[in-house]
Amino acid sequence: MLTLYSYWRSSAAYRVRIALNLKGLAYRQVPVHLVKDGGQQRSADYCALNPQGLVPLLVDTDSGAGEVRIAQSLAILEYLDEVFPVPALLPVEPADRAQVRALALHIACDLHPLNNLRVLQYLSATLGVDDSAKNAWYRHWVSVGLAAVEQGLAHFDGRLSLGHRPGYLEACLVPQVYNARRFDCDLSGYPRVLEMAARCESLDAFAQAAPEVQPDAT
Amino acid sequence: MLTLYSYWRSSAAYRVRIALNLKGLAYRQVPVHLVKDGGQQRSADYCALNPQGLVPLLVDTDSGAGEVRIAQSLAILEYLDEVFPVPALLPVEPADRAQVRALALHIACDLHPLNNLRVLQYLSATLGVDDSAKNAWYRHWVSVGLAAVEQGLAHFDGRLSLGHRPGYLEACLVPQVYNARRFDCDLSGYPRVLEMAARCESLDAFAQAAPEVQPDAT
Repeated sequence: MLTLYSYWRSSAAYRVRIALNLKGLAYRQVPVHLVKDGGQQRSADYCALNPQGLVPLLVDTDSGAGEVRIAQSLAILEYLDEVFPVPALLPVEPADRAQVRALALHIACDLHPLNNLRVLQYLSATLGVDDSAKNAWYRHWVSVGLAAVEQGLAHFDGRLSLGHRPGYLEACLVPQVYNARRFDCDLSGYPRVLEMAARCESLDAFAQAAPEVQPDAT
Repeated sequence: MLTLYSYWRSSAAYRVRIALNLKGLAYRQVPVHLVKDGGQQRSADYCALNPQGLVPLLVDTDSGAGEVRIAQSLAILEYLDEVFPVPALLPVEPADRAQVRALALHIACDLHPLNNLRVLQYLSATLGVDDSAKNAWYRHWVSVGLAAVEQGLAHFDGRLSLGHRPGYLEACLVPQVYNARRFDCDLSGYPRVLEMAARCESLDAFAQAAPEVQPDAT
């Protein structure tokens, strides 16, 4: 059985929900509320499962190697692609895989973590940054990050990352676009990003992974 | 031919130098100075090669698929392991690969980017954060991040990530420890981290990747 510890609005958890849906894998969802109780991801119970204290966490009890617990959304995507290879999330050729990973990692390393809830909380609570400057911070990293992704998408020449279908890259891109919209970022300068997101959002795998339709959405 | 665009003190570039050395691959190094000229990584020439405007970038002209340019250190590590599989950087079993990637990604996504030069520059120049608060920010994320890595290393029970030899995980861990020391972080609470780093630092692959012995070190 696959169990996903998730929070509806976590874009890292959103990536994994998309990947599980793209592969047609059934999974149980356990909500971890990132704000309530001072952040349930910091609770002793949750940290015993995932010492990183972040969502998502995937638990696989059918691995043949005992219970496997995997933190980090991209580690989960790689695992799913290795254990359940069809349909693939990544292209076949190393050079193509590298282009997909480089863009996904740009989102996952250099864009998203800077705008993560705990970082925004540190800016406000510890550094005393006001809301206007905090929103400017958010938009700055979205703008720098998506500008690079926009240029990187030229490589795909209007196609999805697996030609006619989405995978690893889109599982990272769509949640980032969702987040950027939530914070009213101007996305008009990123037409390739918007087009790729639009082609995915209507697909079942993405629609059913959307934050608003999760069991813990409020 | 493999060409690495690198900066001696970039810990992401340091990861790739270690990986190339572990595989015994010859490579040419092109320095990109992250401070000089307002940051050479932002120059038009460099951004034409790597629109992400960050180091490292690996260029492989022998791929059989034309010139391949790969941004993002972990995308490069995955590519190297796919194209030059021996000696491997990652373990064989998916569950083991996932544990290594989850820790490496914790460093690469949730620790390092928050303390990257461009972020520290934004804190000072745009948010007007003073040096003392900036150093506290740096140490805060090192402390949160390495505490999680310390717990995660329990999985390896005193061994290196490939049993008797280092790979993907250590290529990420050692540069992070280097950085933390540079900013005078107290690492005494992370004995497993320190032990793993110490076992690697004396190996040739790591020693020859160290910032101070790079051609652009000043």
